[in-house]
Amino acid sequence: MTKEYDLLTLGEVMLRLSPPGNERLVRSQILENRVGGAELNVAGGASLLGLKTGIITKLPENDLGKYARNTIRFSRVSDRYLVYDNSPEARIGIYYFEYGAHPRKPGVVYDRKYSSVNRIDIDDFPNEMFSSTRCFLTTGITLALGGRVRETTIEMMKRFKEQGVLVAFDVNFRGNLWTGFQAKECIESILPMVDIFFCSEDTARLTFLKEGTVENIMKSFTEEYPISVVSTTQRIVHSPKVHSFGSCTYNKKEDQFYTELPYENIDVIDRVGSGDAYIAGFLYGYLTCAGDCQKAVEYGNAAAAVKHSIPGDMAVSDLEEVNKIIKDHQTTGRRPEMER
Amino acid sequence: MTKEYDLLTLGEVMLRLSPPGNERLVRSQILENRVGGAELNVAGGASLLGLKTGIITKLPENDLGKYARNTIRFSRVSDRYLVYDNSPEARIGIYYFEYGAHPRKPGVVYDRKYSSVNRIDIDDFPNEMFSSTRCFLTTGITLALGGRVRETTIEMMKRFKEQGVLVAFDVNFRGNLWTGFQAKECIESILPMVDIFFCSEDTARLTFLKEGTVENIMKSFTEEYPISVVSTTQRIVHSPKVHSFGSCTYNKKEDQFYTELPYENIDVIDRVGSGDAYIAGFLYGYLTCAGDCQKAVEYGNAAAAVKHSIPGDMAVSDLEEVNKIIKDHQTTGRRPEMER
Amino acid sequence: MTKEYDLLTLGEVMLRLSPPGNERLVRSQILENRVGGAELNVAGGASLLGLKTGIITKLPENDLGKYARNTIRFSRVSDRYLVYDNSPEARIGIYYFEYGAHPRKPGVVYDRKYSSVNRIDIDDFPNEMFSSTRCFLTTGITLALGGRVRETTIEMMKRFKEQGVLVAFDVNFRGNLWTGFQAKECIESILPMVDIFFCSEDTARLTFLKEGTVENIMKSFTEEYPISVVSTTQRIVHSPKVHSFGSCTYNKKEDQFYTELPYENIDVIDRVGSGDAYIAGFLYGYLTCAGDCQKAVEYGNAAAAVKHSIPGDMAVSDLEEVNKIIKDHQTTGRRPEMER
Amino acid sequence: MTKEYDLLTLGEVMLRLSPPGNERLVRSQILENRVGGAELNVAGGASLLGLKTGIITKLPENDLGKYARNTIRFSRVSDRYLVYDNSPEARIGIYYFEYGAHPRKPGVVYDRKYSSVNRIDIDDFPNEMFSSTRCFLTTGITLALGGRVRETTIEMMKRFKEQGVLVAFDVNFRGNLWTGFQAKECIESILPMVDIFFCSEDTARLTFLKEGTVENIMKSFTEEYPISVVSTTQRIVHSPKVHSFGSCTYNKKEDQFYTELPYENIDVIDRVGSGDAYIAGFLYGYLTCAGDCQKAVEYGNAAAAVKHSIPGDMAVSDLEEVNKIIKDHQTTGRRPEMER
Amino acid sequence: MTKEYDLLTLGEVMLRLSPPGNERLVRSQILENRVGGAELNVAGGASLLGLKTGIITKLPENDLGKYARNTIRFSRVSDRYLVYDNSPEARIGIYYFEYGAHPRKPGVVYDRKYSSVNRIDIDDFPNEMFSSTRCFLTTGITLALGGRVRETTIEMMKRFKEQGVLVAFDVNFRGNLWTGFQAKECIESILPMVDIFFCSEDTARLTFLKEGTVENIMKSFTEEYPISVVSTTQRIVHSPKVHSFGSCTYNKKEDQFYTELPYENIDVIDRVGSGDAYIAGFLYGYLTCAGDCQKAVEYGNAAAAVKHSIPGDMAVSDLEEVNKIIKDHQTTGRRPEMER
Amino acid sequence: MTKEYDLLTLGEVMLRLSPPGNERLVRSQILENRVGGAELNVAGGASLLGLKTGIITKLPENDLGKYARNTIRFSRVSDRYLVYDNSPEARIGIYYFEYGAHPRKPGVVYDRKYSSVNRIDIDDFPNEMFSSTRCFLTTGITLALGGRVRETTIEMMKRFKEQGVLVAFDVNFRGNLWTGFQAKECIESILPMVDIFFCSEDTARLTFLKEGTVENIMKSFTEEYPISVVSTTQRIVHSPKVHSFGSCTYNKKEDQFYTELPYENIDVIDRVGSGDAYIAGFLYGYLTCAGDCQKAVEYGNAAAAVKHSIPGDMAVSDLEEVNKIIKDHQTTGRRPEMER
Repeated sequence: MTKEYDLLTLGEVMLRLSPPGNERLVRSQILENRVGGAELNVAGGASLLGLKTGIITKLPENDLGKYARNTIRFSRVSDRYLVYDNSPEARIGIYYFEYGAHPRKPGVVYDRKYSSVNRIDIDDFPNEMFSSTRCFLTTGITLALGGRVRETTIEMMKRFKEQGVLVAFDVNFRGNLWTGFQAKECIESILPMVDIFFCSEDTARLTFLKEGTVENIMKSFTEEYPISVVSTTQRIVHSPKVHSFGSCTYNKKEDQFYTELPYENIDVIDRVGSGDAYIAGFLYGYLTCAGDCQKAVEYGNAAAAVKHSIPGDMAVSDLEEVNKIIKDHQTTGRRPEMER
Repeated sequence: MTKEYDLLTLGEVMLRLSPPGNERLVRSQILENRVGGAELNVAGGASLLGLKTGIITKLPENDLGKYARNTIRFSRVSDRYLVYDNSPEARIGIYYFEYGAHPRKPGVVYDRKYSSVNRIDIDDFPNEMFSSTRCFLTTGITLALGGRVRETTIEMMKRFKEQGVLVAFDVNFRGNLWTGFQAKECIESILPMVDIFFCSEDTARLTFLKEGTVENIMKSFTEEYPISVVSTTQRIVHSPKVHSFGSCTYNKKEDQFYTELPYENIDVIDRVGSGDAYIAGFLYGYLTCAGDCQKAVEYGNAAAAVKHSIPGDMAVSDLEEVNKIIKDHQTTGRRPEMER
Repeated sequence: MTKEYDLLTLGEVMLRLSPPGNERLVRSQILENRVGGAELNVAGGASLLGLKTGIITKLPENDLGKYARNTIRFSRVSDRYLVYDNSPEARIGIYYFEYGAHPRKPGVVYDRKYSSVNRIDIDDFPNEMFSSTRCFLTTGITLALGGRVRETTIEMMKRFKEQGVLVAFDVNFRGNLWTGFQAKECIESILPMVDIFFCSEDTARLTFLKEGTVENIMKSFTEEYPISVVSTTQRIVHSPKVHSFGSCTYNKKEDQFYTELPYENIDVIDRVGSGDAYIAGFLYGYLTCAGDCQKAVEYGNAAAAVKHSIPGDMAVSDLEEVNKIIKDHQTTGRRPEMER
Repeated sequence: MTKEYDLLTLGEVMLRLSPPGNERLVRSQILENRVGGAELNVAGGASLLGLKTGIITKLPENDLGKYARNTIRFSRVSDRYLVYDNSPEARIGIYYFEYGAHPRKPGVVYDRKYSSVNRIDIDDFPNEMFSSTRCFLTTGITLALGGRVRETTIEMMKRFKEQGVLVAFDVNFRGNLWTGFQAKECIESILPMVDIFFCSEDTARLTFLKEGTVENIMKSFTEEYPISVVSTTQRIVHSPKVHSFGSCTYNKKEDQFYTELPYENIDVIDRVGSGDAYIAGFLYGYLTCAGDCQKAVEYGNAAAAVKHSIPGDMAVSDLEEVNKIIKDHQTTGRRPEMER
Repeated sequence: MTKEYDLLTLGEVMLRLSPPGNERLVRSQILENRVGGAELNVAGGASLLGLKTGIITKLPENDLGKYARNTIRFSRVSDRYLVYDNSPEARIGIYYFEYGAHPRKPGVVYDRKYSSVNRIDIDDFPNEMFSSTRCFLTTGITLALGGRVRETTIEMMKRFKEQGVLVAFDVNFRGNLWTGFQAKECIESILPMVDIFFCSEDTARLTFLKEGTVENIMKSFTEEYPISVVSTTQRIVHSPKVHSFGSCTYNKKEDQFYTELPYENIDVIDRVGSGDAYIAGFLYGYLTCAGDCQKAVEYGNAAAAVKHSIPGDMAVSDLEEVNKIIKDHQTTGRRPEMER
Repeated sequence: MTKEYDLLTLGEVMLRLSPPGNERLVRSQILENRVGGAELNVAGGASLLGLKTGIITKLPENDLGKYARNTIRFSRVSDRYLVYDNSPEARIGIYYFEYGAHPRKPGVVYDRKYSSVNRIDIDDFPNEMFSSTRCFLTTGITLALGGRVRETTIEMMKRFKEQGVLVAFDVNFRGNLWTGFQAKECIESILPMVDIFFCSEDTARLTFLKEGTVENIMKSFTEEYPISVVSTTQRIVHSPKVHSFGSCTYNKKEDQFYTELPYENIDVIDRVGSGDAYIAGFLYGYLTCAGDCQKAVEYGNAAAAVKHSIPGDMAVSDLEEVNKIIKDHQTTGRRPEMER
């Protein structure tokens, strides 16, 4: 039986305002206005690859909320579970972003307090939502937000789980939203509901206080919780403009690790959202290839690698493009530099 | 004895984000980033004409606060009484602005709740500030803000008054910040401290429930309160792109009205801040011409008229330009269309 | 019983490339890339007002086709009946547009020959499409295109009609696509299927060779064909930058004419698509107000008037904005110039 | 016998740097870089209409000089008589331009002192230049420049005259380059060589101290000097954004005045260069229609009127466009607002 | 005896529309409008170096054709043999271009079918054209186009050859225009007329099915056909943003190979047209240095290397710049990073 | 006793006009308008770090002079000692700048002759200026300018010295302003007044004809002149887009050398002004850390390194940013790529 959605994600949708090129926030008279948010980025990336996806969120009922809604639709993400806030407090969260150039790192200024998502409520959504999808994803960012967000998130996760929906969770630790201790405590309370768990090696060590090899750490999560799959991305930062990117995934049932050669010397146009693109690609591969973790890793890595070459939070690569990237990555020998 | 400042103003400094040209907020991927706020606009306009001015406000200690500070200095306004907010809540208020074109009016979306100015405190400022200026101005917008703003504003007004500083006040009624009834009650409580009072005819009627001719209304304020000068601007909106602008001023001591022929068929590039430019010009004329209300009206009208031709909140006209505008306005007969 | 769509429209979707501002095509190094087409403009305008709409068309399966598709979705128009052309001939039609300024008229250069829509085929679409909507609209432009377009259009119109769908048709005469004689002959062959007929007075006279008052002309169409409603727009061009706009509608069953005072002195930012916006507003009013032609005229006029103030082919006004425009238009006396 | 050129003009070619839109010079971080100069504007305008034209000038042998040269060629003006300055002093003249909006006039800041044209020398040019053209034009601006420009100009005029070339001269009085008295004295010394004389009514009165009707003034020039044709433009400035434009021409031999209804309510996008476009159109009409002054006036007026709608100094209208403008101007009754 | 032209090239002139910076075609609302085409690129590059060049092509007689013509003139290429198409089918070919960033390659979408060049005819051109130049160049792209292009091309080549003009030919294989087999068959039929032959090693192997060392391959062409000079470029693609570039040339008469150290680690701003720049530099060196292939290689390599640093298809380097590049390339030891 | 300024610098303030991105001067229709000049860059950079600074210069009293003044204030540099030139010759100097990309170097075209600074006079400034600051800096560029600049500069240096002000001097050799011989002779005449001397190794060798190790060279200056501190920067140019940067400083009194590991593989967005940023950082460290040369070197290197990542002449880094850069530079091991 086909469900209406392959993937629903829950999270805040923000404006991302950034100076063009290498201009600085303290000086720029122009700001590029994009829309982003980790969970929307996942839904958008997966949708362009071919999954039917939607975003669960609350936006202000004003021109900025409408701008975000239009952009969500532009990316082929359904706005059916987008609810509107018409309280006098209604506002859209903002993050200001500035590109880096060695030795200066990229810069972020958040202004997301009191945004409309804080007033999201389980009763804003119809019951059928919880059975309308194959997979549900949210991240640690959502859990770290204030207002009613955390309680609504946990309640939603329960209801999706009850309906047999696959639950995916990305830790996505943000030091400016909560401490490692707070994150650990909260996330451990929801891990019993999680099927697919995304967590970087650094976060595993620093936040969850894990020790040992990365493989042992990954395994340990599946031993402590009923998690089926754990996936870790590995990034090497040569400079703000050049990264390498790879990942490793552990499948508990098969007791097997999946990986491939990393993408080397990626030209970093915009690094934001590449982790989300990884998850988008991973879930695309996992959901369309019957849980084949090797496919998931390949799609995840390729989607993440190519996202670095695209400005803005959101991926714009469709399946044709990602397949080309994968093929090129797996080809050795002379390849044409451009097809024409 | 010369004071360090001719004019200090108190109010919120905001980012003004607007789509370029006639683009719409629901669609624009580019936002022009300007800085504005009624009281800053007055200080900036007056400073370019030649007054020594400063802004009293609180801004977040982040890149956006620094952008605002730099822009304040660009306009020759002193940042000495600009204090910084480094609380975790620190944020700069924003207003989104969209130009109109008949039959569509200009549009405004405010996002100024919880901004850093809400945490402004009388103790943030040194005592010598209150005796460092000839004139102090604030507006009804500032009184309508939340947090500690109103109480700090009233306390400041008292202290300036105690130091013999001329107190100017512009009603600047904003229906989205408070009701007419709230405005009336609050403003009436501070009118006993006000020397120069700016109030539009509409506001006088609708908010202060005045009746009769505009001249009678103006007089009545000076009868009920120890106000020396009342000034009213008069705007005719032919379309969002064409206005006419004039004003009338009553001097109580001289018991006399001052006015001149209005500026007709102004090309409205950006109407925001033209009322503030009027006050800037008025105070420039009043303070530099020994209280000559005719000069005040002429500078006020000219500064306001030319502001309409300039994009953004803040005026950029210096004395040379405003004098040319006045001269042209008072000249009849053939004038060159361009000097070269 | 609710249908999935309120309105499906059939027509070509093109790129519209234009120099920014007042720059000229013979010189501009920058082109603004928008998407347009009369029938898409109607669907987009109606969708933003609240109808459920979709576009029926064929686009190349390349990056430009995807750009058009994304933009279609941005405007809340369904892409379910958008089919793709992956033949080696696949291309998107283009029209180059240049703004006018008196005494220079706006300029258009078409490059739409051989575009993918020419290969549109009735078999590209599922049978259920024909019963999924309350209303179907196409225009004379579509009939004038080459390839298989005309035959597919007439066949679709038949099938929609058979399913009891309301058929709307806008003459939209384009002298660069066919002669008046060709247009008359072809359109007369489909008028027996049309319920709502949009035709300008000029076209009625010059193309259909009608004579007499505009009222008589309108009536005559309903006498010769089984048309229920005829609607005519009336535009006065004061200059490329200032127009007035009104309309008149005849309802055959009620034997009554509907009109209202025209919108005067509209600021023309972009005139293209204002006729389409009229139809969008008209159909919105007609379909949601149980065939009330007065409402249809008011929504049509307001949607058209405000479209002139918006750059690009496509309207961006939602119901809230159009309602404000109507209210302002019907209010007399003093109105605020801006709400804040 | 066909000459290689129809028209050679002599004058300075400058960069024209202006803030985009309505931005101000005291604030703009972006400057649009165009190329202009009265005499180049005439050559460019006439060339696009169909004359074979060239510019006689001296430019620095650096990237800015090359930019100007490329732009000259872009406008179909020959660069054969463009000579280069590789002295250490070599520089291109600049004028900064700012658009006006009522009540603010357009603004100009000149920075043309010591530019390369000051080192122009008669020996920079081959002898055959003086017999290679049907018509030679220069203006009072060129005579008012410093360095060797005036002496070179007068010498060139002599040599062209000796070769039987038609000599055209536009007074183009610039108060920032010389006084009226200086202009009168210098220009009167070259009028004996002039065949076609362009002079505005104001300049005739203020600079040449003429009195009486405009017709009498025009005649008087032909009585005092061996001038064949005198032409005067008439501009009415409704606002910086709306002008009307007409002209009157006197042909001495025929003892007849030529004029037509002025172009009313022109949308002024950029007024600079419209006088030069008039001369371009006039000379086009005069040279291609065997000295028919009515044609000259019509082409002159139309070319000038349409130039107002085009940003930058230089016209971009070709014969097809100007013919359309003329036809529209002479047509009464209903005309389509746009052809498509 | 001096000829009017040093080089005439024959080929299609297209618009090149590309999103600015790293933006994607599926999303960009802005397209940069440049003009390009392999043969125009060669003519433009060679002209800036000092050759007298012209382009032979057919363009639509509309605003886009005029834009292309103006740009051709901007690059100092003669438009004398540019003919216009005023058929109803007239259109300019387009290619959409998107920059790459590793691991994403640059992307190209062609829309050149049915463009005006397809209607080019030998009778469009005067007989004297064939004797007016020292060298004629076309490429495999032109031969691969449809309509009358191939037959016209072959006929022109014959006539130039008959007039003793040096015939240069670049294979420039494009897989989207024809198959390798078609290319081989067609090109082999014209090789008997070719004097200077440009062919990449890959194309030699894959299309012409050559085997052995690159030197042997080059020689073999001169053995099979009356070719005097064969030149091969060698590109190493480190990433879409970093290439190395060198070349090798064989002179049959001297039986000698010419090469030099390649340019390493070129910053690739825009790779398109660098091969054409090579040919422009090569022919400049060859024609001005009496067939000295070493000079040809040095100018070719330098022109190609520096072209990578310039956005758009067309080179903008003049002889002074290319000479500096060559000097720097041949200098060892410490060099200043910038001259000022 | 606190002085009003920590640092006053003397030098020309110019417009810097550059094409955006990688566009070329010979082609660009857009120029970015920035303000720069070595001595202003130092004052601006030091001011943002926390020093109280001012610029001593002369600017034209026109819109461009005002633009420069506003920008100076934007950077927190005092305009108290900025004097205005209202002579008819008044102009602002310009330099045109074009970014490089290997193998093409950045390009500079100067147009600074006859600018207003040439008319700077010691009598333009009040006597108290000479005792109002802790440190005075100028550079060899200022000494190389024409008009009265050199004599005014030397006289100012004397007066500052007499008032016990620390005198800093940067050689900043510019081959396009004077010869090495002229520079040597002039600079040696002022070295007896200099306390802190900045000179690159290359300049020391080529201009001052020094030989031996860099350490010996540095020492030798302190032996020949009463210089306290000599500082040398060391730059390695890997390509126009990648540099490494370090420095070495000799303190005569302590007879000690100070250095640190250089910043490697800096992403060069804009190299201009990085040397000035070094001096800004150096003087900040030196003046606020009681002459601690190690701190001076660290602040200098960090300020210079980060300047490369910022477009325009002027630094925009405040103390918080520079401290982060230093901390990162001194940290080893894994560091987060972005803080959020």
